[in-house]
Amino acid sequence: MLVPYNELLDTFKKILLKEGMNGDKASICAEIFAGNSRDGVHSHGLNRFPTFITHIKQGLIAIDAEPGMISKKGVLEHWDGHLAPGMYTASKAVAKAVGIAKENGLGMVAVKNTNHWMRGGTYGWQAADNGCIAICGTNSIANMPPWGGKEPTLGNNPLVIAVPRSNGHLVLDMAMSQYSYGKLHEHYLTGKKLAHHGGYDESGQLSTDPDAIMKSKRTLPVGLWKGSGLSLMMDVLVSSLSGGRTVGEITASGSEYGVSQFFICISPAELNEGIIENIIAYAKSSAVTDEQSSIRYPGESTLRTRQKSMAEGVYVNDKIWQEVQAL
Amino acid sequence: MLVPYNELLDTFKKILLKEGMNGDKASICAEIFAGNSRDGVHSHGLNRFPTFITHIKQGLIAIDAEPGMISKKGVLEHWDGHLAPGMYTASKAVAKAVGIAKENGLGMVAVKNTNHWMRGGTYGWQAADNGCIAICGTNSIANMPPWGGKEPTLGNNPLVIAVPRSNGHLVLDMAMSQYSYGKLHEHYLTGKKLAHHGGYDESGQLSTDPDAIMKSKRTLPVGLWKGSGLSLMMDVLVSSLSGGRTVGEITASGSEYGVSQFFICISPAELNEGIIENIIAYAKSSAVTDEQSSIRYPGESTLRTRQKSMAEGVYVNDKIWQEVQAL
Repeated sequence: MLVPYNELLDTFKKILLKEGMNGDKASICAEIFAGNSRDGVHSHGLNRFPTFITHIKQGLIAIDAEPGMISKKGVLEHWDGHLAPGMYTASKAVAKAVGIAKENGLGMVAVKNTNHWMRGGTYGWQAADNGCIAICGTNSIANMPPWGGKEPTLGNNPLVIAVPRSNGHLVLDMAMSQYSYGKLHEHYLTGKKLAHHGGYDESGQLSTDPDAIMKSKRTLPVGLWKGSGLSLMMDVLVSSLSGGRTVGEITASGSEYGVSQFFICISPAELNEGIIENIIAYAKSSAVTDEQSSIRYPGESTLRTRQKSMAEGVYVNDKIWQEVQAL
Repeated sequence: MLVPYNELLDTFKKILLKEGMNGDKASICAEIFAGNSRDGVHSHGLNRFPTFITHIKQGLIAIDAEPGMISKKGVLEHWDGHLAPGMYTASKAVAKAVGIAKENGLGMVAVKNTNHWMRGGTYGWQAADNGCIAICGTNSIANMPPWGGKEPTLGNNPLVIAVPRSNGHLVLDMAMSQYSYGKLHEHYLTGKKLAHHGGYDESGQLSTDPDAIMKSKRTLPVGLWKGSGLSLMMDVLVSSLSGGRTVGEITASGSEYGVSQFFICISPAELNEGIIENIIAYAKSSAVTDEQSSIRYPGESTLRTRQKSMAEGVYVNDKIWQEVQAL
């Protein structure tokens, strides 16, 4: 069914306040959950909200904690998230990196002991709304084998790159596996094959069968050996810069909490919007592969979904919506 | 055949001096060409040297030019490369970004009107040798269709990420196409199929036939829609930050010159080498897919090739080596 954005927002906020979260934190977290559903990223919006509440009850998320700066070197700050809600800390970290960048061209915050940021794109949109370019990264629990290996010892460690633009920001939000476990499960439930290879089956053959891939745990890195290398580098960047937990340590702890992240913001003297428009127009000038295809820039469909949700209501899964309303 | 590194270096330098390049510039360019061959990246070492000389003769590379700063905002500098040799300007830009980062945590140089940097990894190694993390990017001529399109309107726009490490730096040097045209051509010449899909044939089917892909010009982005998006974002970053030429403009000019690049360096108070070792060890703890496979971190094989080349001599293609010696 479709639910007005404000109803979704108010429901989330009311529940978070009931859990004991303070008003400021509850507002930020509710806005991010509602915003993710509004933008069509249901897996990290409404659908993830019950897990978030469970993690609070289990003590993996410390609702009373505040992130704090440990040290600072010029435009680079080092924070401890103290296991506060990840979206809260991530949005504070971006705001700080934006502030530093506006003064100094660049600003960076590296955070250890933080929690899942839900949709990474959120912080790209936030930086871009504030006129900044952003490059952000996080690590995750191990969910992908390295190239040459068959057991998952890499995370999908999403990378976010955002560039502000008057006609709709460019926001790339890219995990290092070709398909997330969420997507594999979604295909499995609806009995659909993947459109492209998503991993290997247990006999080591490339496969489009979501069930076979979930069973083998051999998901495919984007670009094969290339995405495997990029995933490892993302873990090195977030963990070594923050001094926080690695994919291996998160995995050993049994739950995806206490992760490591970084947020780089760039605020150039000039952003050359005309150049950005030229790049988009040139990319789109390619003939399409077939009538059903279109060429889109990163963030283009998000913006379209957002506008539709605000006009017509936000799509929610009836069952999960009822479950959340009862929380 | 195998040639001592110093012989390769001296030969390149002598030719560059003969072409009228000054001593400092000739030393840097010769070291980069020789270093690329030494590290096993022949396509951007010896094998590319004749093209470099041709580009100098055609005036696409201005050997007398010096890159210069246009403006500065805090730790972010904006340079004009004035079409000087790309490797020279890139190494100067990294050196500057390293210097700024050592003082301020981060430093960045965005460069317009520069030239091909040959192997991007070179500048990652340079930053890491100086104790800095680096994130660098460049654009290129259009050589890859965007996802959903069938004509090349994206570049392969390499991304470099480097992290210093006592036992051998981590250096990822990743173009956004699964296989470069150089690799396709190499397979074609030796009559080999690609090990994985490298693009589409003219009928729109995924293919491992290098000739069919070169004919269709439909190379495959890493991670399909994901690498297509990342390539577009790289062009946006390098071009909008530098105010330089886009992939579309480089392509329209008919030659791959006058490109746009950026160099970010990060110098944290602490680099947590133990964390980096843990990440590498954990990744390598996965069982391998078969006896021939191994799990490697980005830069691992480069270092091995380098050590072998220095001990036994640098591999050169006999014909190209003769051709270069006659220049």
